Amino acid sequence: MTDRPKAVVLLSGGLDSATALAIACDLGFSCHALSVDYGQRHRAELDAARRVAAAQGIIDHSVVPIGLGAIGGSALTDPQIAVPQQPTSGIPVTYVPARNTVLLALALGQAEVIGARDIFVGVNAVDYSGYPDCRPEFIAKFQELADLATKAGVEGHGSRIHTPLINLSKADIIRRGVALGIDYGLTVSCYQADDAGRACGVCDSCRLRAEGFRTAGVPDPTVYR
Amino acid sequence: MTDRPKAVVLLSGGLDSATALAIACDLGFSCHALSVDYGQRHRAELDAARRVAAAQGIIDHSVVPIGLGAIGGSALTDPQIAVPQQPTSGIPVTYVPARNTVLLALALGQAEVIGARDIFVGVNAVDYSGYPDCRPEFIAKFQELADLATKAGVEGHGSRIHTPLINLSKADIIRRGVALGIDYGLTVSCYQADDAGRACGVCDSCRLRAEGFRTAGVPDPTVYR
Repeated sequence: MTDRPKAVVLLSGGLDSATALAIACDLGFSCHALSVDYGQRHRAELDAARRVAAAQGIIDHSVVPIGLGAIGGSALTDPQIAVPQQPTSGIPVTYVPARNTVLLALALGQAEVIGARDIFVGVNAVDYSGYPDCRPEFIAKFQELADLATKAGVEGHGSRIHTPLINLSKADIIRRGVALGIDYGLTVSCYQADDAGRACGVCDSCRLRAEGFRTAGVPDPTVYR
Repeated sequence: MTDRPKAVVLLSGGLDSATALAIACDLGFSCHALSVDYGQRHRAELDAARRVAAAQGIIDHSVVPIGLGAIGGSALTDPQIAVPQQPTSGIPVTYVPARNTVLLALALGQAEVIGARDIFVGVNAVDYSGYPDCRPEFIAKFQELADLATKAGVEGHGSRIHTPLINLSKADIIRRGVALGIDYGLTVSCYQADDAGRACGVCDSCRLRAEGFRTAGVPDPTVYR
């Protein structure tokens, strides 16, 4: 038994969501981790999510399968679209259409079911790939939607969306996580990690991560293939 | 080849969504039907969705599987929770937490991928079960979210959410559909239809549907078990 308030934490298995989970735990929440198997190429992320949840002592970890491949349109879900090896301008092809809307909707449903009034998501609008649904204005609007969308919201105690990383640089996120004792060697950020979780070192996500460790002055535990 | 504008139409296989699809087609849209297999009890709905799409001449029909059972909390996805046989007060246990948020998010992703600027959803706030995410204020807020959530929205041509049934009574919906030539015998509304699509006749959805046919003065083609 615990009197701690419950929170749902979206956990991809990457560096950012691992840090968001550690922050939520550190704030005293009883955390329920929610991962989504959306047919992403980098399935090693889900294995990483399980490791990260276990390391954090999370007992409740749901993995919701969803066939976004039926929709397609992203290098992360459609094997016909290649992951870029170089920086690109604009919104990149690794963008999954409406992904964060779907993920937050699922978190909202999960929060309602378990009676959690808090949702944590590790979106970041500084060192990120330029996805529209990582921006603060998107999150603020989703909060307004959440207040209307659910039974709990209608009854006046809808879920609060927390984005503790949204204004941090990747280096700041890493420093914060190291202070909280995270072993980033458990996490996988690469858009095209192999089954063992080894990173490519050249995709957008790998580049942002490697630069973050360099800037933070923290040894990079990432295993490259 | 067609010059008609594309639309994504959420199609559950029930009476309302079949009517929304017929209206979208009648308005001249090239319709892409989107159904979601969310582990609902009434799986006969999905078979109905396929029949309805075929009858309407829809070539593109995606069925996205999503394991909402991992979240639970509804009589429609959790076999441990019984479907009420009598009217209940408040939001009923057949409410699926955040369902319409999830469905609209998927439609938004699909619209972005196929380049559709219009989304149709058959929500109705008159003869409905009292779900919070069927109300006009929820839809209006989702529209605001859609304008921020996607690449298309950011580029200034995000999707418009159409709810042609939202202010119609069930009888009005049926009259409208009959005028458009819908065979409602193809549709399944029952929350606990059997595998052959035969209705229970006592759940909330069956009651609203039967009353709609009576009020509209239209013979009810529903097959009851």
